Amino acid sequence: MNGESGGVHWHTQSVSRDDREKQNGHSGCLVWFTGLSGSGKSTIANLVDRKLHQGGIRTFLLDGDNVRHGLNATPSQLTKQYGEAFGERFGLGFSEEDRQENIRRIGEVAGLFVEAGLVVLTAFVSPYQQDRDAVRSKLSLGDFIEVFVDTPLEICEQRDPKGLYRKARAGEIQGMTGIDDPYQAPLHPELVLHSGDSPAASCADVVLKHLQSLGKIQLSL
Amino acid sequence: MNGESGGVHWHTQSVSRDDREKQNGHSGCLVWFTGLSGSGKSTIANLVDRKLHQGGIRTFLLDGDNVRHGLNATPSQLTKQYGEAFGERFGLGFSEEDRQENIRRIGEVAGLFVEAGLVVLTAFVSPYQQDRDAVRSKLSLGDFIEVFVDTPLEICEQRDPKGLYRKARAGEIQGMTGIDDPYQAPLHPELVLHSGDSPAASCADVVLKHLQSLGKIQLSL
Repeated sequence: MNGESGGVHWHTQSVSRDDREKQNGHSGCLVWFTGLSGSGKSTIANLVDRKLHQGGIRTFLLDGDNVRHGLNATPSQLTKQYGEAFGERFGLGFSEEDRQENIRRIGEVAGLFVEAGLVVLTAFVSPYQQDRDAVRSKLSLGDFIEVFVDTPLEICEQRDPKGLYRKARAGEIQGMTGIDDPYQAPLHPELVLHSGDSPAASCADVVLKHLQSLGKIQLSL
Repeated sequence: MNGESGGVHWHTQSVSRDDREKQNGHSGCLVWFTGLSGSGKSTIANLVDRKLHQGGIRTFLLDGDNVRHGLNATPSQLTKQYGEAFGERFGLGFSEEDRQENIRRIGEVAGLFVEAGLVVLTAFVSPYQQDRDAVRSKLSLGDFIEVFVDTPLEICEQRDPKGLYRKARAGEIQGMTGIDDPYQAPLHPELVLHSGDSPAASCADVVLKHLQSLGKIQLSL
């Protein structure tokens, strides 16, 4: 980048992704967990995050907790701060289109974290193949690691950590993935985890070993 | 966080901002540059970014280049990938409301980077006081550092790095900040830089010294 100010010429070179990765001592990438509510995505992602962090890797975790109340707030949340017209215009609900935009924004933000040289983990149901593929397509080859947390619906429904399945079965909520909204299992995920059969810690280890095998990180496990 | 899987109980503790800051050896914060087009925001932000990076600080820079084509894409950009209905619904134009949402999203993303323990720099005109105040209000006290790049319009217009002033004067574009759209100078910025009088490198040094004086970072300048 070239700039000019006060008659003095100078040269500014932006800090590149490569510079940031060298500083961190590892590559950036996006580990995208997908699966039904209650499948174990968040729990496994948190375990991977902690293990990576303890191993000196720079990480960040995007999930419903830090995205849905902020960047992708609902109409009613935005209405409180900005008024109703703004909330209706920019808030995200749960229609198919709004879910698509929700995933698109998350993918874009995750891409910025990858550019910053971090290993970023995301834990969202993200039920549609085309939405996940769209995120993949915006990243460089090998930077998107799709992890399918393949837990049978019966087990997810038994766990029901947020009580959503109960509400869906009672007809209190609509559009629940796995009940009255489809979940499209990944066609070519980089990893499949069976959290119904294995403890979350074992699933997390599978992810860590995969990241190591790719050469993204170096950990002594 | 508590979770359950396969009959096994375990405990996952999320990695906190404090954990991430300890790993990095410095605090996270948001340095928000605001000023007219051509004021020198991007140039100064890039210089600060590079100096911080060279000093071992984990940083990231958000600017039009990495935000406007991705997270905050325009209707026409989104239409190309997702179709017209989607592009019209979710794309951001340049109306006052759309600019407000543009800044809101940037603030939310910057907040995530702060949570990740990074020093994040933003370089956007961000002409409205209430939009900048809204970003400030979402962050913890002391994490938002508003830097007013106070360069006279005449100098900005002479520089005209993107040719926008020329177009605005010729009536080819509307809503140009400083010409036919207002710029609201910050009421209580943490720093004011006079890039019309001082080279960008001197302005960058003022920012670095301020960050040091706050105890956010330690650099040998």
